[in-house]
Amino acid sequence: MARDEGIKALFEPRSVALVGSSKLRERVGMTAPWLFKSVIHNMKKYFRGKVYVIDIHGKTSRLSTVKDLPGKPDLGVLMLPPPLSIKKAQELSEAGVKALLGITGGYKAEEREQLLHIGREHGVRFLGPNTILGVVNTTNGLNTMFEQDLMPMKGKISIISQSGGIGAAMIDWVCFYGIGLSKFAFTGDKIDVDDIDIISYYGEDPDTNAMAIYMEGLREGKEFVNAVREVVKDKPVVALKGGITQEAARRALSHTASIAGVDAIYSAAFKKAGVIRVSYGIDHLFDAVLALSKQPPMKGDRVAIISNVGGPAILAADAVYRYGLKLAKLSDETVARLARKYPEVDATNPIDMIADAKAERYRDVLELVLADPNVDGVLVINMLKSCFFEPEDAEVIAEVAKKHSDKPVVDVPTGAEDYLLIQKALRQTDIPTFNLPDMAARALNWLREYDAIRKRMNNKERMEPRDSRKPRTSTKNS
Amino acid sequence: MARDEGIKALFEPRSVALVGSSKLRERVGMTAPWLFKSVIHNMKKYFRGKVYVIDIHGKTSRLSTVKDLPGKPDLGVLMLPPPLSIKKAQELSEAGVKALLGITGGYKAEEREQLLHIGREHGVRFLGPNTILGVVNTTNGLNTMFEQDLMPMKGKISIISQSGGIGAAMIDWVCFYGIGLSKFAFTGDKIDVDDIDIISYYGEDPDTNAMAIYMEGLREGKEFVNAVREVVKDKPVVALKGGITQEAARRALSHTASIAGVDAIYSAAFKKAGVIRVSYGIDHLFDAVLALSKQPPMKGDRVAIISNVGGPAILAADAVYRYGLKLAKLSDETVARLARKYPEVDATNPIDMIADAKAERYRDVLELVLADPNVDGVLVINMLKSCFFEPEDAEVIAEVAKKHSDKPVVDVPTGAEDYLLIQKALRQTDIPTFNLPDMAARALNWLREYDAIRKRMNNKERMEPRDSRKPRTSTKNS
Repeated sequence: MARDEGIKALFEPRSVALVGSSKLRERVGMTAPWLFKSVIHNMKKYFRGKVYVIDIHGKTSRLSTVKDLPGKPDLGVLMLPPPLSIKKAQELSEAGVKALLGITGGYKAEEREQLLHIGREHGVRFLGPNTILGVVNTTNGLNTMFEQDLMPMKGKISIISQSGGIGAAMIDWVCFYGIGLSKFAFTGDKIDVDDIDIISYYGEDPDTNAMAIYMEGLREGKEFVNAVREVVKDKPVVALKGGITQEAARRALSHTASIAGVDAIYSAAFKKAGVIRVSYGIDHLFDAVLALSKQPPMKGDRVAIISNVGGPAILAADAVYRYGLKLAKLSDETVARLARKYPEVDATNPIDMIADAKAERYRDVLELVLADPNVDGVLVINMLKSCFFEPEDAEVIAEVAKKHSDKPVVDVPTGAEDYLLIQKALRQTDIPTFNLPDMAARALNWLREYDAIRKRMNNKERMEPRDSRKPRTSTKNS
Repeated sequence: MARDEGIKALFEPRSVALVGSSKLRERVGMTAPWLFKSVIHNMKKYFRGKVYVIDIHGKTSRLSTVKDLPGKPDLGVLMLPPPLSIKKAQELSEAGVKALLGITGGYKAEEREQLLHIGREHGVRFLGPNTILGVVNTTNGLNTMFEQDLMPMKGKISIISQSGGIGAAMIDWVCFYGIGLSKFAFTGDKIDVDDIDIISYYGEDPDTNAMAIYMEGLREGKEFVNAVREVVKDKPVVALKGGITQEAARRALSHTASIAGVDAIYSAAFKKAGVIRVSYGIDHLFDAVLALSKQPPMKGDRVAIISNVGGPAILAADAVYRYGLKLAKLSDETVARLARKYPEVDATNPIDMIADAKAERYRDVLELVLADPNVDGVLVINMLKSCFFEPEDAEVIAEVAKKHSDKPVVDVPTGAEDYLLIQKALRQTDIPTFNLPDMAARALNWLREYDAIRKRMNNKERMEPRDSRKPRTSTKNS
């Protein structure tokens, strides 16, 4: 079976077998009747394909063995302790699944070997074990998470998380803020399917246009670099690496059996691969991938700031320089037009449009600065409290930005409740929102960084002759 | 009149005169009938003192002149355009107010001079003008903000903001998250009352135990340093400075008439004064002051991490080192006790208590690590999604921490919705919460920084003879 077919079956199976027990309970590895029940619940509720349930302690109402299955599943989901999961992996492989997914953990090294062996023998790809939450695909409703009724909205971001906990926090995040997701893969112990497989799959997935990765360890650094370099020509890849200190790395070893390794090696590999690396946490990971999934790369470093409040605009200006960008010097024409139309507005960047600015003034001023050849990107600030602005006024930002789709626009509804109100008004549009100026300036810098990466990768391609890049074992011409 | 009495009247007036117009509307300076009406609404709703309304365009139902007042107000609040505000400032000063507060802006330099002159002549302190939102005091219900029905909860944090926009974002933040506040002063153009006056007042205020400042400019650097050095011996002061780059500084000049000055000078002054400086935004300002208002300084750099998830604990360990702290090496006794009580938990720091940990295990493990002499502070992580933990389980963290009140404990309910649920359960306790591990590690570092500041300031006092610190013009002994 082709390597790719197994990966595809992990995300796009036509039929899925859920294998667990309605009786067994094991603390450490997460085997539990309620977990099994919750996954069944979610799969039956969301998945638009066939679902088979194999309950090894089931009575007549449920099937208890693989050979009783009325059809052939593409994907098997294992929710049993290691020895039983291995047994069922064998049976499912013999029954012809294309991929297996291990939810539960607690595997010893030799048990991981056994799983790997079964998979190799039958050409079955294995994701996990110890993925905890498995796989989510908003396109076909695949959802092996045990949090009942939790399903992210559809979108263009795809994620990979080696950690169940980090992944669960990310799912919590996207669901709370209504951030659209395409696919989510929890990779756990990564005995077979790894970041390379999934990044390559996301790279060709029409429903993904940017991806975020949380990883603790990585095997095959060279392969990773080569695979990702291809992907980032079209789609940005953002990564957060856990276990960068020696002490945390030791914990990663017992957590997901990862050798976190020396951080400098990862830094070098990420750089070579064209991965945008974030260092602080999943907020940065989301901020980056959100901006990259919605807005074009920024082709220069000159930023215009337009705002209905003074203080946040000043903080935004500070942040623009903090991230190595600069304030655009507006063209004389823009200044003249602005002064003519809104004489009470000081036409200096950052532009303080004053507290009574509403949709109309935002539309006019944003249109002017986006049309200015001296401007490469725009940071918009709109507060509600202490201002006249209302959430629906924000819609004009998306409208105007769409007309200038070569320049990125990011929006900052500064605050907490104010942020949520405007974020809600804009979440379905192409405008990424950030609740503080610093985050938006940082996001613009990631868009700038991706512009450089994309150029670098695509230039390399033009400079090197095609044949030397991809050696073939035989061609008609040789 | 004593300098202090005027400042006190700004926060603790027995009676307040609200001066505005039910007809005048002016865009730039914020004069507007609805603003006036909203401030009246909030003051009548929340203020537990006498409220006089002076509507200069009022009919019989409202007073229209100062001399018609039936009593003598302590504080006058001006919501008129500059020339009219100046006129009313004169009348109110003659009528015996102790302090004046200017909400509206748009003053020219000579108009600011006039206000200052009136104040000096009558010994009346002036806050603003251009404060936009004025003053909030949760103890007596004073609230001159024009956002109707917006009143923060009572608490021990007091804030100063030079910017109306930044201040409004902070008010939005504290109200949304239910963060308790004692006082809030918007300082605007700072023609008379400045940061020094308010910091000194907060320093002696029994309802304030930590303070946060947003400032764009500062006069009298030496006085600032001297005043703050006294305050930080007992109460931490955190500051965010806007306009650190030349370009942003230029904007600050037109925003609040501040000369933002060279950033290095501020850095030096903050350091000398013992101010904890944050650089990125109001999230850092809040994280710092929240931790400092609730938890003791951290007396060493050894941090224990206890968690019900692996990935976030690894990110927390990375963050601990990022901020110059380190992971505590648990004592043999702690390790032995932990292993005896919870054999399934790996007793290595960071301690992964596994996904089924609930209140009891959190109580036991937190108790053990806090009692360990090798531990200076604890970072607790508790996720809901993918775990058995429930919001009310978090209450034991506050209980146990209270018994070890010399060591700080911070809590990380990682995520978005998960965070809000646990934050709600803990907001009335002494445990500060952060939604990501990085922020909590950073907060522990601020607690460590304050320990150093407090020691430095109090040691200096012991080392220098008392008379040499405070020179007197005459003493009986000289």
